[in-house]
Amino acid sequence: MGKAILLVCDGLGDRPFAERGGKTPLQVAKKPNSDELAREGINGQMDVISPGIVPGSDTAHLALLGYDPFQCYPGRGTFEALGAGIELKEGDIAFRGNFATVAEDGSMRILDRRAGRFGSKALADALNGIEINGVEVIVKHTVEHRCAVVFRGEGLSRFVSDVDPHEEGLPPRKCIPTRSERNAERTARIVNEFVRRSHEILSEHPENEERRRKGVPVANILLLRGAGAHESVEPFQERFGFKACCIAGASLYKGVAKFLGIPTIDVEGATGNANTNLKAKAESAIEALKTHDFVFVHVKATDNFGHDGDFDGKVRMIERIDAEMISLFREIDAYVVVTADHSTPVSLRRHSADPVPVVICGDGVRTDTVQKFDEFAAASGGLGRLRGKDLIPILSDLMGFYKMFGT
Amino acid sequence: MGKAILLVCDGLGDRPFAERGGKTPLQVAKKPNSDELAREGINGQMDVISPGIVPGSDTAHLALLGYDPFQCYPGRGTFEALGAGIELKEGDIAFRGNFATVAEDGSMRILDRRAGRFGSKALADALNGIEINGVEVIVKHTVEHRCAVVFRGEGLSRFVSDVDPHEEGLPPRKCIPTRSERNAERTARIVNEFVRRSHEILSEHPENEERRRKGVPVANILLLRGAGAHESVEPFQERFGFKACCIAGASLYKGVAKFLGIPTIDVEGATGNANTNLKAKAESAIEALKTHDFVFVHVKATDNFGHDGDFDGKVRMIERIDAEMISLFREIDAYVVVTADHSTPVSLRRHSADPVPVVICGDGVRTDTVQKFDEFAAASGGLGRLRGKDLIPILSDLMGFYKMFGT
Repeated sequence: MGKAILLVCDGLGDRPFAERGGKTPLQVAKKPNSDELAREGINGQMDVISPGIVPGSDTAHLALLGYDPFQCYPGRGTFEALGAGIELKEGDIAFRGNFATVAEDGSMRILDRRAGRFGSKALADALNGIEINGVEVIVKHTVEHRCAVVFRGEGLSRFVSDVDPHEEGLPPRKCIPTRSERNAERTARIVNEFVRRSHEILSEHPENEERRRKGVPVANILLLRGAGAHESVEPFQERFGFKACCIAGASLYKGVAKFLGIPTIDVEGATGNANTNLKAKAESAIEALKTHDFVFVHVKATDNFGHDGDFDGKVRMIERIDAEMISLFREIDAYVVVTADHSTPVSLRRHSADPVPVVICGDGVRTDTVQKFDEFAAASGGLGRLRGKDLIPILSDLMGFYKMFGT
Repeated sequence: MGKAILLVCDGLGDRPFAERGGKTPLQVAKKPNSDELAREGINGQMDVISPGIVPGSDTAHLALLGYDPFQCYPGRGTFEALGAGIELKEGDIAFRGNFATVAEDGSMRILDRRAGRFGSKALADALNGIEINGVEVIVKHTVEHRCAVVFRGEGLSRFVSDVDPHEEGLPPRKCIPTRSERNAERTARIVNEFVRRSHEILSEHPENEERRRKGVPVANILLLRGAGAHESVEPFQERFGFKACCIAGASLYKGVAKFLGIPTIDVEGATGNANTNLKAKAESAIEALKTHDFVFVHVKATDNFGHDGDFDGKVRMIERIDAEMISLFREIDAYVVVTADHSTPVSLRRHSADPVPVVICGDGVRTDTVQKFDEFAAASGGLGRLRGKDLIPILSDLMGFYKMFGT
């Protein structure tokens, strides 16, 4: 049986950027190893969910790992909580939380949705364990401004809206029920009370006093979004017949993996940021192949540069991935797949529905005429245009872990 | 209204074969007529079921004939029985049977799953009519080592496993229920008893005595697989509006056709083997077009060469199909479609999920730039990447038997 590494560069796909001659970061980047993969492998473009549907990071990864997100999607919070190492119980409602900065002039306008990308265990601990109407709130810090928040108690519902308005300059939104049911109304009230208290408690926290003195953004509120519930699905190994593991810095991706029964291997220096230790991740992936059939490796920073509108940063990140990871993957006897979970065009600073390039390199693939790994070249590849959820089945067949349908 | 011939070359698709310069049998074969079709027609690659799903021969043909196998699949045995000319009744459970050779040293190890590709009417007759617990067993020989076996009686279920372990060196498997229900347990017990008796009866059969003397493999057991039940679907002509017929040697394909209400035209010398009379089949197909709108022609041997790992055999078979069939089809005033039900790469000796090439030639198609009929060239064709179940609808529209959706 064959083995495989799937490298997902978050938000890698892009659109032509006028200020760089209408090229994408992938087209501008010097990436000899990726181009070599493209020449030796089979290429295509992939609608991770379906054409025109803008993928979230969570639904995209479900699809990339072979699960149709239209059929199983518990809500983002679930993945954040699982990724943060919280064991979810039946009835728990989980959220992604952002430490954020709101104006201290009484207007509650959001000045920075990410509090200058700051957060800490101490801030999370100050909120952890709060009880509201018999519901316990679990708050766990993960990376930078991010944390996972779980409401545990009777009579809760995931059908409530986001507190995070996803836009600066506005005050936090009131959480409201998205279905007219008693539990959703109760959950919304508890969430709103929690957010109110988070502002009260964080505003007075010594770490924020310190930040005020330094003149950096204070993390004086916790914005919640992506309510999710506990849910169970057929584990990955049962569905596809091979043993997988995950290497990722950011907790969302670890959470998606955990949701599918895929363990995460922790790598020192894997931060989910641009400063992440790519080489360590690549080496760990190669090591993990000794005991697993399949390693899913996630690199986050390409997406961050897309969100920041930083063309050159994205180019440099692609070049680093090429030099520090793909160069190593080219040496191993395994299928190598490189792709993205969605496009995050620098010109848009948000996810888009543009399909992503994908290359599969390894024994027996029908090599095509593609010479470069980028969005444009991929469109004439031998894979044609695929869906994200078809990738793992295709790989299973190549690896030899196929299941025949019929006889 | 237009007419059409659909030629399905079983297992035709392949992967690059290292020992032949990384080419596929289709790329190596000299096949001027097929290449001419590719130049004049529109080409594409087709996932017969869906990407990454390895098609069985039965599910693949349902899809190729316009039926989604995820929605209607009664089990392979059903097609084998129908193809062998057995009229199935409500409650019948049908299997594909292989005459096989097990060791006569008491170990019951399977030495040859196909008894040297031998079987006969006499051997089948020796088992036909056995009664076990009030259930009658109907055994009918078809081609070579193949037969159809039907269990007829009260309280039977298709949810039982295969006796055939699909591998040599192992003893036959016990048939077990695949759902925990009483009828499945009862069926499994009856199947096991039948297999036991088949060994007892066949071991002493005069034809096998004769084979022992000659030193050729004895057909001393019947291995069952692919339990199927009686089921009914909307007939092909009702669904698509045109009159079809089938020309095939092997009974599975005739059975799929019969299941869909498509009659088979018997052609002398159509054996389902490499020695089949291709020219007779092609001529019969052209003759059948006088009284039918659509002829589905099946050629089995390309798949056999794939399973045998015989690259040159597959090349020669492709060349014969080109010279003896496609050359004739080029002369007629009808749409000509050439494709496969799945890939059977010589390097794998099994079905794979690699998409198959497809060409449609005839009046009004949007000719593309493809110059050759093979897996690689097809990938840049004007049809793009299709699903098998979309082929008949596309053809219906070209032929003029379309149904508009909406007004």
